[in-house]
Parts: sequence; C-alpha cells; structure tokens
Amino acid sequence: MSNSAEAAPEPRVVFRTTLPVRWGDMDAFGHVNNAQYLRYLEEARVQWMESLPGVSMGATIAPVLAASQVNYRKAIEWPAHITVELSIVKVGTRSLTLGHRMRSAAADAQLHCDGSVVLVWVDRSSGQSVPLPQAILHGAG
Amino acid sequence: MSNSAEAAPEPRVVFRTTLPVRWGDMDAFGHVNNAQYLRYLEEARVQWMESLPGVSMGATIAPVLAASQVNYRKAIEWPAHITVELSIVKVGTRSLTLGHRMRSAAADAQLHCDGSVVLVWVDRSSGQSVPLPQAILHGAG
Amino acid sequence: MSNSAEAAPEPRVVFRTTLPVRWGDMDAFGHVNNAQYLRYLEEARVQWMESLPGVSMGATIAPVLAASQVNYRKAIEWPAHITVELSIVKVGTRSLTLGHRMRSAAADAQLHCDGSVVLVWVDRSSGQSVPLPQAILHGAG
Amino acid sequence: MSNSAEAAPEPRVVFRTTLPVRWGDMDAFGHVNNAQYLRYLEEARVQWMESLPGVSMGATIAPVLAASQVNYRKAIEWPAHITVELSIVKVGTRSLTLGHRMRSAAADAQLHCDGSVVLVWVDRSSGQSVPLPQAILHGAG
Repeated sequence: MSNSAEAAPEPRVVFRTTLPVRWGDMDAFGHVNNAQYLRYLEEARVQWMESLPGVSMGATIAPVLAASQVNYRKAIEWPAHITVELSIVKVGTRSLTLGHRMRSAAADAQLHCDGSVVLVWVDRSSGQSVPLPQAILHGAG
Repeated sequence: MSNSAEAAPEPRVVFRTTLPVRWGDMDAFGHVNNAQYLRYLEEARVQWMESLPGVSMGATIAPVLAASQVNYRKAIEWPAHITVELSIVKVGTRSLTLGHRMRSAAADAQLHCDGSVVLVWVDRSSGQSVPLPQAILHGAG
Repeated sequence: MSNSAEAAPEPRVVFRTTLPVRWGDMDAFGHVNNAQYLRYLEEARVQWMESLPGVSMGATIAPVLAASQVNYRKAIEWPAHITVELSIVKVGTRSLTLGHRMRSAAADAQLHCDGSVVLVWVDRSSGQSVPLPQAILHGAG
Repeated sequence: MSNSAEAAPEPRVVFRTTLPVRWGDMDAFGHVNNAQYLRYLEEARVQWMESLPGVSMGATIAPVLAASQVNYRKAIEWPAHITVELSIVKVGTRSLTLGHRMRSAAADAQLHCDGSVVLVWVDRSSGQSVPLPQAILHGAG
C-alpha cells in the first residue's frame, strides 16, 4: 500500500550548476555572508535562463524578483564549490515560483540552504509586468 | 463593538535606521540588486544589536541567520536614502523572528520591501546554538 | 628664504562627502576589504558628478575608469564614517586624473588611504572615447 | 645586434587561475565594476598563498594590502571566464610587490587589466608588521 498520494512530490530539478566560493564572499564572522547566498542563487538563475533558447538577460523583457526565501542550513567556508539546484514549484500566468537548494560540491553533498523565489517578468521600457515569456514556460514546462 | 481581537496586531517596531544607497548597489538592470536588500537589513540588525547594552558584534556569542524572507515591493534606484524598520514577530527560547520593512526616506515613504528573518545565537568557539542572550531578550522584550 | 616654489602644490579639493561604513564591508580579517575602498571612492565620484550642472550618471556619455591607485594607510573597522576628498591632479583633453584621500570622519581625521584614478569618458552607444564633457571641465576647472 | 639587455625583463609568473565572472559582478553600466577587479585579484592571491606549503589564510601572520594599482584595459561582460596571472616584481624584507594580469580565458586571451599590488604581513594579534614568512619567500623565490 502506497502513501505516495499524501507525500509532497519531490520538486523537479530543471537546472544545476556548480560555483566556486570566493574568499571575499565571507564576512567578518569567517563564513559566507547571508546576502551572498542570494548572489549564488541569482547566478544559477541567470545561467538557467541563458541556457533556454530565445531567452537573453539583455532582452527588453527582464525577470524581476518578487520574493525570496532562504533557509540557512549549514555555514559555508572558503575554499569550497557549491552546487545550486533549481526546481519548478509553481508556474502561474504572470509569476514563476522557483525552488532552490545549495549543496557542497564535495562528496558529502552537505545541504547549505534551501528555499524558493518568486519571479515576475517586466517590460524594461514601460516597467509593466508581462505574462511569462514562452521560452521560460517551455523551460519550466 | 470592536474587531480588534480579530485584527493582526501591528508589529512593534524596536529599531529604525536610515541608510544611503550606493551607486554600486545597483546591478546591470539599473536597480538595487536583490541581494543588496539583505545587506541593508543586516546593517539595520547589527546597528540595533550594538545599540543594546551588553551586546557586541565582536562577542563570543554571535547572531546567525537561520532564515530570511523578503517581499520585493518596489525597485530602488540610486540616489536614495532608505529607512529600515525592525519589529519583533516572535521571541523563542533559542530563536528570534524579526520583521523588517524598508521604505524610502523621502516624503512619500514608498514601501520597498517587507518580510522577516529568523535569528539564532551560536557560541563562536564551539559552533553550538545557545539560548538568546539576556541583552537581546531585554531589547526585544 | 622660502622653498615653496619647489614644494609640490597641495591638490585642490573639488568634492568632499562622508559615507557610513557597513558591517558587511568587512572581510574575514575583520577590516574593510581592499576592494571596498574602490566602492567608497566610486560613490564619492558619482556624487561629485551628479552635483555638477549638466552631468548625469544616466547620460549617453559615461565616465569609465582607466586606472586606479590606492595606498592603504590604516585599516578601517565598522562602525565608522569615512570622509572622501577628491582633488584635481591633471586635466587632459580626453582624461582626468583625480586624486583621492579617505579619512576618518571622527575628530582624529585618521588618514585611511590616498591615491588617484584616471577617468575617461565614452559614448555608451558606440563604446568610443570622447573629449571630457564641458560640465566636467567646468567642475574640474 | 640585440637590445635585450635594455629591455625590461618579463615578470616571472608564479600563479595562474581561472575564475568565472558572476552576472552580479556587473554594475549599472553593464560591465564588471572596477572594484570587482580587486576581488578577482584577491581571489587569485589567496589561492596562490593556500597553494604554498606552510601558508594558511587562517594563520596568525596575515597578508595585508599596502597598495594596489590597476590599469583597466578592456571592459568585461558576463558571461566570461577570466584568467589571472600573478608575477613577482620585487621581494623586499618586509614587502612583496606582486604583478597581475587579467586576460579573457577565451581563445583571444584579451588583456582586461594589468598592474601590481604591494603586500605586507602583519601579526594579527599585535597588528605589527613582520618579515615576509619563509613560505612566501620560497613561493616567490
């Protein structure tokens, strides 16, 4: 007898990238600063988007962060490589909820953080929100 | 007849500080980068802590971020001054949930973001979590 | 008998601004990071330029750094306010050499760094170098 | 007839590393910010030092920047990988002058910047300058 109907489905990973930590990412406490996690997550997102046919960070329609949520699980210390995984949590008509996980790229695959962000797309000339670009829908689909 | 019992209580503001935006806080989209918001919030938190008698950022017992949540309401462009408000959402025995709001320091007091963080305290020598310092409990009380 | 004719003339200060140090500007050594000094100097430069009639950081003709030189004299620790002074070292037809000094804004006026940068202006659409804008020449003149 | 005796000797490269540019390293002008170059150079230096037997960034004797000089030759735009080369310019008893060059890691090896830094070593507990560590002398020798 299965309980799979009750279990939360594992989010579907759509992109994975490995980033080197820089010594300068650490703060005076000797750990990677909390704000820097958002830089790593952003780098994974822009790499994902650039990997999708028909999406460009230089385009008129640009992604904007509407919300971010990060659970800090385990401090990161230089030197290290971090693997960021992005997964699709929810696709709306005008917003995309993207889950994220950061793990050590070392053998232990230590979980450093998880959480999610909400992205919307705006027309950079008008500043107005627009529907999700088709290329993103396909990438997330 | 009052409906105050049903209304969510307005969070109690415990600290307020105004920070100048730096031109370099903006990213290639010409707005203050999402990660930078966490830097502003951090600066407000450390200023708050340093304002409490008996708390020091250089002490053995140090605050660590366990979670962060930010709703990005309105983009920030240089030049600007931002007022950060911190409020007490929940005081636990080993964690503190701190609400935050960032508004323009200009007359319109435009809301730029809101959200909250969860803080825990650790003994920097052992790395172990410790109960909230008394000085923080008093500052939050 | 005076030797003033032989002494190097004191550079003429054209702009002065005071900036708060952020806790997050410090690195794992507990001092403001060397790269951050360039952020403070940049902030002073863009504030100076915005103060000149007819200059805008959003304009088609934009300043670009051709060289930077910094002598780190004394470490900076949070909390602190820093006063940055900009002076004219040399005005060329296509480049401007700007001296800088950073001092503590406290009573001791401790010198934290000095040095200079070379700025050129480029047409952002073509990427080509252009003569110094008149407004900059007047500001530096 | 050769004029090689008069030519400045090519600096001896002691370390070379390749770093990925992050999208967030760019500023509102859409190029990697000038301060960020110092972060790349710092990352190359700390990687070099960690590669030397008997040197650790966590040790009591720590390197401190006394001066930095950067000639910005060509703007960097994300996405890109940058190769940083460090060379020995001058070894003093209490300071080390390290040359640097940053090139594109792409086939064209475009030069992005060159220049040098002066490093001194300090005892972190006393703040006093100390002679160059033996391990650094060997690494630079």
